[in-house]
Amino acid sequence: MLENIRVVLVNTSHPGNIGGAARAMKNMGLSRLVLVDPLDFPSHEANARASGADDVLASAQVVATLEEALVGTTVVLGTSARDRRIPWPLLDPRECGAKSIEEAARGGEIALVFGREHAGLTNEELQRCHFHVHIPSNPDFSSLNLGAAVQVLAYEVRMAWLAAEGQASKTEKVEVASVKSAELATSDEMERFYDHLEQSLVDIGFLDPQSPRHLMARLRRLYGRSSVNRAEMNILRGILTETQKAARGELHKRKD
Amino acid sequence: MLENIRVVLVNTSHPGNIGGAARAMKNMGLSRLVLVDPLDFPSHEANARASGADDVLASAQVVATLEEALVGTTVVLGTSARDRRIPWPLLDPRECGAKSIEEAARGGEIALVFGREHAGLTNEELQRCHFHVHIPSNPDFSSLNLGAAVQVLAYEVRMAWLAAEGQASKTEKVEVASVKSAELATSDEMERFYDHLEQSLVDIGFLDPQSPRHLMARLRRLYGRSSVNRAEMNILRGILTETQKAARGELHKRKD
Repeated sequence: MLENIRVVLVNTSHPGNIGGAARAMKNMGLSRLVLVDPLDFPSHEANARASGADDVLASAQVVATLEEALVGTTVVLGTSARDRRIPWPLLDPRECGAKSIEEAARGGEIALVFGREHAGLTNEELQRCHFHVHIPSNPDFSSLNLGAAVQVLAYEVRMAWLAAEGQASKTEKVEVASVKSAELATSDEMERFYDHLEQSLVDIGFLDPQSPRHLMARLRRLYGRSSVNRAEMNILRGILTETQKAARGELHKRKD
Repeated sequence: MLENIRVVLVNTSHPGNIGGAARAMKNMGLSRLVLVDPLDFPSHEANARASGADDVLASAQVVATLEEALVGTTVVLGTSARDRRIPWPLLDPRECGAKSIEEAARGGEIALVFGREHAGLTNEELQRCHFHVHIPSNPDFSSLNLGAAVQVLAYEVRMAWLAAEGQASKTEKVEVASVKSAELATSDEMERFYDHLEQSLVDIGFLDPQSPRHLMARLRRLYGRSSVNRAEMNILRGILTETQKAARGELHKRKD
């Protein structure tokens, strides 16, 4: 699906930004770069900033007009500052990612279009886009670096793609599950731990059974919310056992 | 809320990346930058890449160690490659944004920690983090530019902030106030606790300094995810103090 998504950079001035965009694309699994009338390309600076995404630069298509860049596309999304005189369907980056993957999933061809470093896209260019995408930013400092803007949209495309693939939910859950569910200490193991903890605290003189002052309640609250797993429980129980030996003076005796 | 969130860059080699990070931060409304032992800073290159975010660079705090950078923090999130030997709570950038804003909303102090350009964070540094954050990326080309990584996390922080601001205007957020983060133990208090814990475990013979076997890492993971508050911290420290007395045989002597 990701191969159906092209990144189009219009009239880029700084080759370093082309390299930065290429790197961001490849990091997120995108490979199709189209450059509309770039000021300086190919360039050593672009390759330096691409840091290994040279293949994206090598296969980049250089064209003279936005029209050529958009040949074959079914959905065109153009980045835009928030307020434009002509009202247009406006998406945030997350919606842009979802829209791109939705369209790619049914075989469409998608273009993500980025404007000039300082001037963005012209109104005419924006009118070629089906949707405008605004990256939410500090109103007092709203202009993102071009590579950074490509990074944000490419990231949201990848997040949407992972969600669609079902990978996001599967892999994340497997990792979390490997730490959690099956290996969590059970309620009765927790109860045995609290008994052991209470006895140990009495042994070292920290807990006075005549005047317990909610101490165990506070410790239950702490460990109770920590989702203690079995390996951790074994460690905690081991510490208590050694603490009790210390309290009985066994360490002291051994040392003598 | 955004002023409660600091960006920490560890041992950055290229000043251009510091500038890129500063620009990305300011674009997303973040302003607090902390640099741990940067190779080259201040630098013209950093200012050039900051493109107007010079105020973020000018107010950046330069410190010698990660520990100093984390003073006062209540939640520390560290960027990480996916697979590490010791399992750790792993968030994606979206979850990282939500976690940061949730914590900031109750008055906490959050650090987003980024490692070296090529080597990332060390395992020791990663163990100082309560959560690891993995930016989903192409497995064959997974290393993002540092500024781009800051951009992605700062973007997700802003998205979560905008969502929270939207909700805040709708509903009263009284519940959150009941768990004031002012009451949470800070990172430096947690570090002192870990030092005390480690020493106590050595004292009772549970931890062999010659063969530590990830014991402290596992205990850091347990307590790190538990949002220990000050009252609980006092209890835990008190238990350790009494445990050490027991290990020194002082209880035993008193009883004799």
